[in-house]
Amino acid sequence: MDVRTVNVPLGSRSYVIKIGEGLLRELGRHCARLGLGSRCAIITDTNVGKRFAKPAFDSLVREGFDPALVIVPAGENAKSLKSVQACYNQLAAHRLERRSFMVALGGGVVGDLAGFVAATYLRGIPFVQVPTTLLAQVDSSVGGKVGVNLPAGKNLVGAFHQPRLVLCDLDTLKTLPEREFRSGLAEVVKYGVIYDGGLFKRLEHHGDRLLAREGGFLTAVIARCCEIKAAVVVEDETEGGLRQILNFGHTIGHAIEAISGYGKYLHGEAIAIGQTLAACLSTHVTGLPRADAIRIGNVLAGFGLPNRIRLGAPQKRRLLAAMRLDKKVSNGQIQFVLAERIGKVVWGQRVPEALLQRTLNSQLSNLD
Amino acid sequence: MDVRTVNVPLGSRSYVIKIGEGLLRELGRHCARLGLGSRCAIITDTNVGKRFAKPAFDSLVREGFDPALVIVPAGENAKSLKSVQACYNQLAAHRLERRSFMVALGGGVVGDLAGFVAATYLRGIPFVQVPTTLLAQVDSSVGGKVGVNLPAGKNLVGAFHQPRLVLCDLDTLKTLPEREFRSGLAEVVKYGVIYDGGLFKRLEHHGDRLLAREGGFLTAVIARCCEIKAAVVVEDETEGGLRQILNFGHTIGHAIEAISGYGKYLHGEAIAIGQTLAACLSTHVTGLPRADAIRIGNVLAGFGLPNRIRLGAPQKRRLLAAMRLDKKVSNGQIQFVLAERIGKVVWGQRVPEALLQRTLNSQLSNLD
Repeated sequence: MDVRTVNVPLGSRSYVIKIGEGLLRELGRHCARLGLGSRCAIITDTNVGKRFAKPAFDSLVREGFDPALVIVPAGENAKSLKSVQACYNQLAAHRLERRSFMVALGGGVVGDLAGFVAATYLRGIPFVQVPTTLLAQVDSSVGGKVGVNLPAGKNLVGAFHQPRLVLCDLDTLKTLPEREFRSGLAEVVKYGVIYDGGLFKRLEHHGDRLLAREGGFLTAVIARCCEIKAAVVVEDETEGGLRQILNFGHTIGHAIEAISGYGKYLHGEAIAIGQTLAACLSTHVTGLPRADAIRIGNVLAGFGLPNRIRLGAPQKRRLLAAMRLDKKVSNGQIQFVLAERIGKVVWGQRVPEALLQRTLNSQLSNLD
Repeated sequence: MDVRTVNVPLGSRSYVIKIGEGLLRELGRHCARLGLGSRCAIITDTNVGKRFAKPAFDSLVREGFDPALVIVPAGENAKSLKSVQACYNQLAAHRLERRSFMVALGGGVVGDLAGFVAATYLRGIPFVQVPTTLLAQVDSSVGGKVGVNLPAGKNLVGAFHQPRLVLCDLDTLKTLPEREFRSGLAEVVKYGVIYDGGLFKRLEHHGDRLLAREGGFLTAVIARCCEIKAAVVVEDETEGGLRQILNFGHTIGHAIEAISGYGKYLHGEAIAIGQTLAACLSTHVTGLPRADAIRIGNVLAGFGLPNRIRLGAPQKRRLLAAMRLDKKVSNGQIQFVLAERIGKVVWGQRVPEALLQRTLNSQLSNLD
């Protein structure tokens, strides 16, 4: 099967995303083209490491690199300052230099953590993303947003640091647990809603081919998501404007993750709920047809994703408080990304408190 | 007395440095011109805070800002990931937003720490430097290098994040302990050696006016140092080349700080020794006249700064090991900035191990 290439043209920070099978075992060869130093570090987690650390390590050694292997615990808890510090210490022990580089081998947590370490170690060293989950391949590995969580909120600490290369090896998705794969589909749906009505229709009609992880179809869909993400990031690298559309469903989604304790909901599950609620708000605020809000909820449900959450009054208060800690808050006002139609969203939308309360209460009960 | 202004033209990241008396009490007014949000945080340390936190805080409140006060322990130990984490938590508690800003009120430690926190909180928020030591006014507050130490080495973690404004209030120097003031003069001497032979001569002939902290003379010297730093930073913001000249004396100086335990030597004291040793190496490698190496050692000694260090064999080994962890190491080779003459240095110089050993042994005993 062919390897697809998506360009991310950002001047001196330009890079390519490669999508296809067998890319992991060619990691060393791809890195060799980047003209970096020989010393490097692979950061991965206990789960991904078991399967893929050896082929990645061997591939680098074959091309003359001198990699260290840094393993962090699996799960969202690894996205912490404690892990950052542990990584720094191991990079120092392996004597990484400014021309050395890091490889982030894993899902979104590993990519965000490793990227933040790369952004700040020696004031920034190069890094390569090798995302091994669908969610990381279509979203977090592209665009340079890296960071970790604080007790007070998700991704409150971070940087913009573009990778030098992204390798999406479809083979790594073959062993991905069903729940994680479905979680990644929530971000795929998002691209349809925010940017590409045609993609959304393909998801409506051929969802079964995605769930079956059909190689050619999956490659095309991942490549399309990466193209959309690249186009948005090229337009607005540091989220001054357009890039905010990528947060559709995330203001509520992040708050759900925060109040549930990171890890209860997978990120994709939380933003599936967030997207459904954002669609619901959109029918009131930005004129999204009710039928389209229902379609959004249905596509997500079709992928086995949750589209509702039941909260008691104290939880609802905690959810609203968590939303106010969101990075997009301005003058204390929560900003939402809302849809005008499927394929077109607007950002910076304010929602009256009463409507937000009502939507959290009723949710989709009157939509589905 | 007049306020001097030095421009740092860096496109969208341009800012001004103001040098003069009474600037601290005008902090709020200067910040008001920057067009930032109202919520902000002053980061200072226990020592500086006692004297200057209240005027800074009040000045911000008078202009309608809503500042939080974050106080870290005084001393180099505060430049740690532990302090970074403590700051993050307080910024989150005060609900800082992307348009909020931070004020670094203190010496180099506070500026580097607060700058790193500002560079990474919410992926970067604006910050203002109010340096209260000579060293911070002429060096660390300008140029956007921010960061903290690791157990493995100084400044191993950091970012490039330019301030929006630098206010050097000469009044804050009036209460600066003598030892700290002299430590700052080591960086002043450095600017003469690396860039401005005329400045060096003024230091040779009018050192007493500096030591007396004579207002007009001090303002002119600080402004000249800031001009030189600005010129170098504008040429090479992220230390790809020229900016390395600012590290004259620092490769050895940082290693001295590392093996002595941070805090035993003040930074300026360590780099005074480093500069003297670098001058000594320069006579062998880059043709610095022996007489000029002696002049460099003498100016530093005239400011009461150390220009030698006595090390046993195990300490010498630790010093060399610490130098190899320097950020400027490339392919395992230590890179030095060396002088060709006073006012002109070259970077990326390698020094034969035997010469380095000999210089560490003999030091200046045959120079002075």
